[in-house]
Amino acid sequence: MLAITEPDQMVDAIKRLVVRGAPAIGVAGAYGVALAARSYGTDTDDFVTAVASIRDARPTAVNLARMVDRVAALAGEGPDRILEEAHAILDEERRASLVMGESGADLVLELVGDRPVRAMTICNTGGLATVERGTALAVIQSLHERGRLEEALPLETRPLLQGGRLTTWELQQMGAPFRLLVDSAGPFLLSRGMADVVLIGADRVAANGDTANKIGSFSLALGAAHAGVPFLVVAPESTIDLDTPTGADIEIEDRGPAEVIGFGDTLTALAGTPAINPAFDVTPVDLITALVTEKRIVRFQEGETL
Amino acid sequence: MLAITEPDQMVDAIKRLVVRGAPAIGVAGAYGVALAARSYGTDTDDFVTAVASIRDARPTAVNLARMVDRVAALAGEGPDRILEEAHAILDEERRASLVMGESGADLVLELVGDRPVRAMTICNTGGLATVERGTALAVIQSLHERGRLEEALPLETRPLLQGGRLTTWELQQMGAPFRLLVDSAGPFLLSRGMADVVLIGADRVAANGDTANKIGSFSLALGAAHAGVPFLVVAPESTIDLDTPTGADIEIEDRGPAEVIGFGDTLTALAGTPAINPAFDVTPVDLITALVTEKRIVRFQEGETL
Repeated sequence: MLAITEPDQMVDAIKRLVVRGAPAIGVAGAYGVALAARSYGTDTDDFVTAVASIRDARPTAVNLARMVDRVAALAGEGPDRILEEAHAILDEERRASLVMGESGADLVLELVGDRPVRAMTICNTGGLATVERGTALAVIQSLHERGRLEEALPLETRPLLQGGRLTTWELQQMGAPFRLLVDSAGPFLLSRGMADVVLIGADRVAANGDTANKIGSFSLALGAAHAGVPFLVVAPESTIDLDTPTGADIEIEDRGPAEVIGFGDTLTALAGTPAINPAFDVTPVDLITALVTEKRIVRFQEGETL
Repeated sequence: MLAITEPDQMVDAIKRLVVRGAPAIGVAGAYGVALAARSYGTDTDDFVTAVASIRDARPTAVNLARMVDRVAALAGEGPDRILEEAHAILDEERRASLVMGESGADLVLELVGDRPVRAMTICNTGGLATVERGTALAVIQSLHERGRLEEALPLETRPLLQGGRLTTWELQQMGAPFRLLVDSAGPFLLSRGMADVVLIGADRVAANGDTANKIGSFSLALGAAHAGVPFLVVAPESTIDLDTPTGADIEIEDRGPAEVIGFGDTLTALAGTPAINPAFDVTPVDLITALVTEKRIVRFQEGETL
């Protein structure tokens, strides 16, 4: 358990991925602003600096900047009002998670038909990454609760292995059957008919539907399209960014070589090996079957748009 | 340095990947039979058992069974003749490597045009995996020696990280510039125009051109096709198996969960986590621009066949 009492600690927690997942860092950012308001007052330079530094802690997920802006806009009404709005954001995201899980499961069953579902997913999109039950993993949990999940197929998600470390733990907690894969096995197993649907979360959905998410999502989308398997993005409305026209306009964070050349204290390549480390990729909308939010289902492949 | 003096040690070395890479395990298998012939004589049950056990040590690479069969067919001529044939196989593979490097580099420059080449590759296909200079990595080495390589982009190649551990070392030895990637970043960087060609080796090329190679090759092929980047397979004639009609007929080795849930002594998921671990995948011929062997270039995308 990490207790955060200073705004700088929140910035650090977001940067180091202590808090991660787009909805969770949006909520954390809002509480970070509430903390700054209480610490510095809302009419100080320190407050303005703290808000900017929380907002810029990570660039790709739109939720962070959006929620920081939403609560910071209430600065004139004082710290208590900001905290109240942060609570409201948390409540909204909680409710959104429950709705997405159910309507996503409905959509999966409509697309897959009357059979046990084998669902492939990447990264960690459950309660550890988000709030309440999460996004893509909330759908898997709903399928499991309805007795319709045959197997979850989580990808380990290099470099930080959120799938191997976190998603497997969450699946175990919910009692769902699963088998873990290395990331590059996902598209191949799709080609061999071993999954019925791919479910991912999102860090930012552009106005045209292009979706930034954990590196490896794009490969899965290519594999799903090649195999004719539905590819679904599950994300709250707060992740949609109509100010970003297309995926080409999304800034992709490069987190540096250290994560690639090792895992924890174990080096997986020679020290000093140069690396490219994009934390996210962009899946073009023409590879996405549909987007599930707490308010709607947008069937891109039937011509629907945001 | 590992000294192998018993046929069983060769079986073990191939199974545990002490000797790995399709051409190298073909050569090693031939020498394993020569060793069995010397140890047991060629007209004994022990010899027959040893040959079968070497031949079956790994299922996917055709070179192993083929080279074992080739030398075992000479059993009637005695151990010395078998050893001579094993030497001949080694010589052939050495010469093949040099020719493939040069003609592969010619083809890359023809396809890419007059610009410095950024070449993406997976697994380890250099001297450590094969004989002499290898296959795909021999092409990269030739490009580098001609001053035409801007950058190599090796994928780390989970689960066993042959790219991160071995290919980066070989690139460093040859003084070639490179940056390492996690596997799932390959297709995304292709989509962003960061590589001009993808070069892979092969464990088995079926009669129709479908190619089994290290898991992750298929994802790269999908990424290359999506980006319009040439995707080249570099492999000796000994890797082509006309008795295997298509990729669907290739047995894919599953190496069990242990490799997926950890690296070396570091666990990357909870102990006991179930996993699927296909060591190879199959790239369908329609995603392969051309095959480069020591004898020919087969341009699948121009309608040429084996």
